Amino acid sequence: MDWPQSICIKEVGPRDGLQNEKKYLSTEDKVSWINSLALTGLTYIEISSFVNPKWVPALHDALEVAKKIDRKPGVTYAALVPNQKGLEKALQANIDETAVFMSASESHNKKNINKSIAETFPILKEVVHDTLAAGKTVRGYLSAVFSCPYEGKISIDKVLFISEKMLEMGISELSLGDTIGTANPTQVEEVLEAFLKYFPKDKLAMHFHNTYGMALANILISLEMGITTFDASLGGLGGCPYAPGASGNIATDDLNHMMNEMGISTGINQEKLLAASCFIEEKIGRTLPSHALKAEKSKKRLSK
Amino acid sequence: MDWPQSICIKEVGPRDGLQNEKKYLSTEDKVSWINSLALTGLTYIEISSFVNPKWVPALHDALEVAKKIDRKPGVTYAALVPNQKGLEKALQANIDETAVFMSASESHNKKNINKSIAETFPILKEVVHDTLAAGKTVRGYLSAVFSCPYEGKISIDKVLFISEKMLEMGISELSLGDTIGTANPTQVEEVLEAFLKYFPKDKLAMHFHNTYGMALANILISLEMGITTFDASLGGLGGCPYAPGASGNIATDDLNHMMNEMGISTGINQEKLLAASCFIEEKIGRTLPSHALKAEKSKKRLSK
Repeated sequence: MDWPQSICIKEVGPRDGLQNEKKYLSTEDKVSWINSLALTGLTYIEISSFVNPKWVPALHDALEVAKKIDRKPGVTYAALVPNQKGLEKALQANIDETAVFMSASESHNKKNINKSIAETFPILKEVVHDTLAAGKTVRGYLSAVFSCPYEGKISIDKVLFISEKMLEMGISELSLGDTIGTANPTQVEEVLEAFLKYFPKDKLAMHFHNTYGMALANILISLEMGITTFDASLGGLGGCPYAPGASGNIATDDLNHMMNEMGISTGINQEKLLAASCFIEEKIGRTLPSHALKAEKSKKRLSK
Repeated sequence: MDWPQSICIKEVGPRDGLQNEKKYLSTEDKVSWINSLALTGLTYIEISSFVNPKWVPALHDALEVAKKIDRKPGVTYAALVPNQKGLEKALQANIDETAVFMSASESHNKKNINKSIAETFPILKEVVHDTLAAGKTVRGYLSAVFSCPYEGKISIDKVLFISEKMLEMGISELSLGDTIGTANPTQVEEVLEAFLKYFPKDKLAMHFHNTYGMALANILISLEMGITTFDASLGGLGGCPYAPGASGNIATDDLNHMMNEMGISTGINQEKLLAASCFIEEKIGRTLPSHALKAEKSKKRLSK
């Protein structure tokens, strides 16, 4: 197989992870954690979300977090932005990149954003336009690409149509979300085959959740298809234990371990990553799904 | 990708799973569980091990289990056999197939069997010969193929040499063991490339543990290389939480789920498998690593 020499892992734990955890972290802990993440070699960290705290109370302190963290040169500090109001705050926080989001499923989009897909386009378009005008870049998330918890599989034509609309707005990258973690390697292959007919591979990132343990297999097939950017969340943070549709992202530590072992460079130090994973596991107060973290803890116990 | 139409999953939970669990199951529970496994559509179940109970006390009742279980036509009931003494009991138990085993690593073999690799060959040869003479078949396990907990990576030439010796004895299939769960897809590709130069693919099976969460990715690459037989353990049973070198096998339920989703036939009913997984989780009394089981339990909780 012709594996790539290197890939880019985008850390979404402080946003996609923490927004789905029952326990809220203090601002100080978030800041310490993000600072330690930046020292691992990660070059992209989504630090929070500028949505209404009424909807995502865990991330109510986005502005404060953004202002208090160290800004390590070479690291892109990004944040989720739903609308103009969020963008104002994100710019006030001097964020490097904003991330806009919508769903490929009408019902999921309605449930998440309280708007139809058609109503969402002009809102995102304005955010993208104004972010670019402010000299920043924008990333796009498309969720429910592989399956929707309400509608099941979404037609690939609809997914491609929405993706094209988002890319036309001026986003620099589109992250394809397996929001409920049900995608399988055959499906990933089919979806990417369709995508790569219309879009260059360096405009695409993959965002897998690990509900059924298939995320690394899905990443493997994505690598084979030429994709080299992947979202991940330290420790496998996120997801609600009571909602099978919301399991955590693939653990950054597991993904980085597999890439290291395969000889694919990520630029990320696994030891530092595991230390940051240990920290967040302690703060969250539940055993996180990361396999690498579990193995590391067993090793330490054995060597005592 | 040119995926196979079907694969064969060999259930090793009652042996490789239970032998590594702290809690011992009663003979009655083992019998009920194995009977329920046979009703899922599984065609191969390794039900126990005829090693000295001094070494594997959890499986002290191998003979009783073998005698008490129903024998469903079409299912191969196999058991691990280390030597002539074990074989006698296995034949007395009217087992369909025996499984002999050794390690590709000198130190691991010594630690496990208390013999050198050279000393192990004649013992296995005799067991294989006498099993075949009794009209039964034999399977071989080679452990530490990808890495040894004491020696690290074993040279591929040594692995191939031992494999050839084992196949020459008359075993019908060789199961290549990633005993400590450290193999990665690149390594699996390299090892299989070397193997397929010398041995036909239908003589090989893969036996992955899931210590670092890479087992499904390793299975995916094995499928691409033409391998269609995989060992798995229901629920991901096995492994000691205090020994990173002994994490459980890939969960049968996770493997079967991925195959179902990919449209690759296994002949195994996922619903029945999950019921049997639920049963064994309750009996063992700890949360098993299976993702499919976790998702199923969440779904049930939600629908209440």
